[in-house]
Amino acid sequence: MSNQRLGRQIAFLVEADRLKTILRRTPLADNSRFENSAEHSWHLALAAMALSEYGPDGVETAHVLELVIVHDLVEIDAGDTFAYDLAGHTGKAERERAAADRIFGLLPPDQAGRFRSLWDEFEGMETPESRFANALDRLQALLQNMKAGGGSWAAHQVTREQVFQRMAPVEAALPDVWPFVCEIIDRYCAAGAIRT
Amino acid sequence: MSNQRLGRQIAFLVEADRLKTILRRTPLADNSRFENSAEHSWHLALAAMALSEYGPDGVETAHVLELVIVHDLVEIDAGDTFAYDLAGHTGKAERERAAADRIFGLLPPDQAGRFRSLWDEFEGMETPESRFANALDRLQALLQNMKAGGGSWAAHQVTREQVFQRMAPVEAALPDVWPFVCEIIDRYCAAGAIRT
Repeated sequence: MSNQRLGRQIAFLVEADRLKTILRRTPLADNSRFENSAEHSWHLALAAMALSEYGPDGVETAHVLELVIVHDLVEIDAGDTFAYDLAGHTGKAERERAAADRIFGLLPPDQAGRFRSLWDEFEGMETPESRFANALDRLQALLQNMKAGGGSWAAHQVTREQVFQRMAPVEAALPDVWPFVCEIIDRYCAAGAIRT
Repeated sequence: MSNQRLGRQIAFLVEADRLKTILRRTPLADNSRFENSAEHSWHLALAAMALSEYGPDGVETAHVLELVIVHDLVEIDAGDTFAYDLAGHTGKAERERAAADRIFGLLPPDQAGRFRSLWDEFEGMETPESRFANALDRLQALLQNMKAGGGSWAAHQVTREQVFQRMAPVEAALPDVWPFVCEIIDRYCAAGAIRT
C-alpha cells in the first residue's frame, strides 16, 4: 500500500476485529451463549444514546460514545477480567497498559495518542463522561444477568454486597436509575440468584 | 417499575440485545465464524473514529457514530439481507419499515422519533454523515472478506462487477481510500476469490 498512514489505520481496524472473540462472563439476554466484548461495547453505545438524559449535568453524549467504543480494546491482549474475581485483578492494570501501548500504537502517532487518552479517561473515572460511561458498563451487565435469569451472579455465587459494591458507580452517575437497580438486586436476592 | 419512561428505555435496550444473534454473511477476520450485526455495528463506529479524516468536508463524526449504532437494529425483525442476494431484496424496504415501527416504538415517543429519523437518514444516503456511514459499511465488509481469504465473495461466487457496484459509495464518500479498495478487489480477482 502506497499510503502508509492509511495502512496503519487499516491494520488497527483489522486487529480490532479480535475483540469479537473475547468472551465476557455475562450471557446474552436469551442465555444462549456468553457475550463478547465487541457487541457489549456496541450495546453500551446504544445505552449512552437511550439513557443520556440521566447522565451527570453537562455530560456530552458524543464523547461518551467515543469512550465506550474504545474502552475494551485492551482486552484483545489482556483478556476480560471477571468483575467479581479478585485474584484476576492482580496485574490487571499492568497487562492492560501494555495492551494499550501495543494496540493503540498500531495507529499513526497522533491518533494513537488520542485513542490512548480516551482509554485513560475511561479508566480514570474522573470526568462526567467517564463516570457516565463506567456506570453504563455496570448497568448493562446487570440487565444481561437480569434477563438471563441470574447469569454470572448465579454461576459464580456472587453476594448481595458484591453486587451493590459493583453497582455503586450507577448510584453516583445515574441517580434516577438507582431505584431500578436496587429493585432488581432485591428481586434476584429473593429469587436466590444473588447470595444474601 | 414506577418510572414508566425508564421502563420503556430499558425494554428497548433489552430487546436490542437480539441484534447479537443476527448473523451476517461476512466472516470474522480469522474466519472462525460469521459476524453478527451488533459487533459489526461496533466495528463501524470504531472505523468512523479511525477514518474520520477521509470523510466528506464538514462531516460530523459524532453524528456518524449515532447513525452506525442504530443502522442495523431493524434486522432484529427483518433479518440481515445479503448484499449480493437480489431475490432477498424483494420486500426488504417494507420489512425493515415495519421493524423500525415496532423496535423504535418501544422507546418513549420523543426518542422513538429521534432514533427513527437516524435510521431514515442512514437509509436515505443524502447527508454527508449518512454517505460516510454507508461507505464505511461497505468498506468494513471488504476488510472482513479480505482478511478471511475471500469470505462471502468466494462462498457465493460474487463477480468483480458486483463488488465494484457494491463498493461505489466508498469511491464517492472516501475518495482517498478508493485506490486501496481497487487494489484489494484486483488482488482477490487475481487470486480467484472474486469471479472475473
